[in-house]
Amino acid sequence: MQTDSYDTVRAVEWVADKLRLLDQRVLPGEEKFLDFHDVRGVANAIADMVVRGAPAIGVTAAYGVVISAQTHLSAGAEDWVERVREDMQVLADSRPTAVNLFWALAQMQRCLEGVATEPNPVASLLERALTLHREDIAGNRVMGELGAALIEPGKAVLTHCNTGSLATGGYGTALGVIRSAYAAGRIERVFADETRPWLQGARLTAWELVQDSIPVSLIPEGAAAHLMKQGDVGWVIVGSDRIVANGDVANKIGTYGLAVMARYHGVKFMVVAPTTTIDMEISKGELIPIEQRGASEVLSFAGTRIAPEGALAWNPVFDVTPAGLIDAIVTEKGVVRQPTAEKMRALMSEGG
Amino acid sequence: MQTDSYDTVRAVEWVADKLRLLDQRVLPGEEKFLDFHDVRGVANAIADMVVRGAPAIGVTAAYGVVISAQTHLSAGAEDWVERVREDMQVLADSRPTAVNLFWALAQMQRCLEGVATEPNPVASLLERALTLHREDIAGNRVMGELGAALIEPGKAVLTHCNTGSLATGGYGTALGVIRSAYAAGRIERVFADETRPWLQGARLTAWELVQDSIPVSLIPEGAAAHLMKQGDVGWVIVGSDRIVANGDVANKIGTYGLAVMARYHGVKFMVVAPTTTIDMEISKGELIPIEQRGASEVLSFAGTRIAPEGALAWNPVFDVTPAGLIDAIVTEKGVVRQPTAEKMRALMSEGG
Repeated sequence: MQTDSYDTVRAVEWVADKLRLLDQRVLPGEEKFLDFHDVRGVANAIADMVVRGAPAIGVTAAYGVVISAQTHLSAGAEDWVERVREDMQVLADSRPTAVNLFWALAQMQRCLEGVATEPNPVASLLERALTLHREDIAGNRVMGELGAALIEPGKAVLTHCNTGSLATGGYGTALGVIRSAYAAGRIERVFADETRPWLQGARLTAWELVQDSIPVSLIPEGAAAHLMKQGDVGWVIVGSDRIVANGDVANKIGTYGLAVMARYHGVKFMVVAPTTTIDMEISKGELIPIEQRGASEVLSFAGTRIAPEGALAWNPVFDVTPAGLIDAIVTEKGVVRQPTAEKMRALMSEGG
Repeated sequence: MQTDSYDTVRAVEWVADKLRLLDQRVLPGEEKFLDFHDVRGVANAIADMVVRGAPAIGVTAAYGVVISAQTHLSAGAEDWVERVREDMQVLADSRPTAVNLFWALAQMQRCLEGVATEPNPVASLLERALTLHREDIAGNRVMGELGAALIEPGKAVLTHCNTGSLATGGYGTALGVIRSAYAAGRIERVFADETRPWLQGARLTAWELVQDSIPVSLIPEGAAAHLMKQGDVGWVIVGSDRIVANGDVANKIGTYGLAVMARYHGVKFMVVAPTTTIDMEISKGELIPIEQRGASEVLSFAGTRIAPEGALAWNPVFDVTPAGLIDAIVTEKGVVRQPTAEKMRALMSEGG
């Protein structure tokens, strides 16, 4: 499939011994790249959402570990391994919901223990991070093909938040499926929720799709049910920040409501995420820690206060969609239709 | 009930032979009043949403007819009645969905035919407009009591858009019920959807409730399902722009999705609107004309462009909630539970 022309954006890159991030806070008005050579800077970049999206956070944290090792080794610290471990805790504390962060840190930790006595541990850690990054992109391309194959041609799709090259190592999860389906001629039109309060849909998904010449129509979240009622949408396609053992899915606030509305209208619901997003340690969605962010994200935008003084706001960043509302979970290891605990176990034990 | 202290806002007023409107486009940052003495200015004020909300549009249009008569009579036009009729068409064309507009114009038309030969027809037309305005407020107070009585104490309510003093002659429809329920101690907490794209919830509902010291927490529309799942919300309470003969309800985009989510979670769904909002000429919701507004409302946020060049947007302003998802329609003539065509007919024939 001709997917390369629909895949031109990269938001996380290792360039000249530094981590380079595309600052997602100022898109689409400004395309600003920031370089990082300090692990606390990397942790702050995750917490402040310079970089966001579960897989992109994981890749970023892996490079953060490389930076940590660089710093402590070049300072000649005897206890550099211990210091890198401390820095990994700082990275782990940057955001609570996306499990890819913890997965990536666990990979780097394992690598760290293995290379501690090597002559050039930084090179080995970097190779591990680069591999993890490459594997993320490769997995996204596999998911793109698997997910696109589920889509009957002739209808539009609706997506939520940003799950594209900006949210991953590259290509995207849900947006990767959309890229592949568009390249294969299976969809002609993409609707994207604007995704308040952070506007990932309007600012990031629309920007990414415009870059790659895929037609996109934004809607306010409130218009989703009315859109589904028209009958033009075949699938809602979303990503995930954490999928747990019974197939429940944590994702950007608004996802759960879309799943309820999709079921009501007979629209199919697809979750696209690499197996690094799956947390078999948690039995069900109710147990996933849900990040709350400040009220100001809802009360203001771009420095403009929109609500009056005295108004409060409730700003949970994620919600949980129960497995029973999901038609397919697409991973790089395969597709789980109508997910259950048993099917999730089977997926994770394959070649595992 | 002590409701007066929760009712301090008026957005439409006749002051010193002029129509004075609170400019709702610039709230809550600025409290600016605009005076109108020209009927085209009034029509533009409705089209541009200086004033919005179905009952407030109706009251405004009634005063617009007074202004039209003033203008043509003071200019000594022989054919002034004909000219006022033409101006009424301009007012009727200002917005398509809210039926209160057409109802108010029909009232003024009837009055016009009756007073054409009187010595002071303007005074009679003004008296009719003032009465219509007073009756709107009185009806809202009745609905406030009727609706509040349906609410079991102990849970929060969720509302959408703005249905308060700003949207009506005063006191409000859905927000009138919330005012009355709060005054009666039946609710302690109000959640308000911010209501993209025009942000009526964040800008207007929150402002109005803060003015009247009723605690309000804003949520993005996407958080509504997650909120309902917590179990803290007993009722979703909304207004309407047009209710048709079978009990289907047109209201601000996002209402229909809330009704679907409420039903899924066992949350009750209340529509509050005066009988002037009921259009027995239309048999079912699919036949209601739905206004589409420009893409720029979605592509921008609070005046700042948020989406990239090249992105499109879909911006229907209203959606239709089928009667089957509605637990109660509250009018000044009484409450219709589980609305049907038969029950709507019965309501409208009482004393009609």
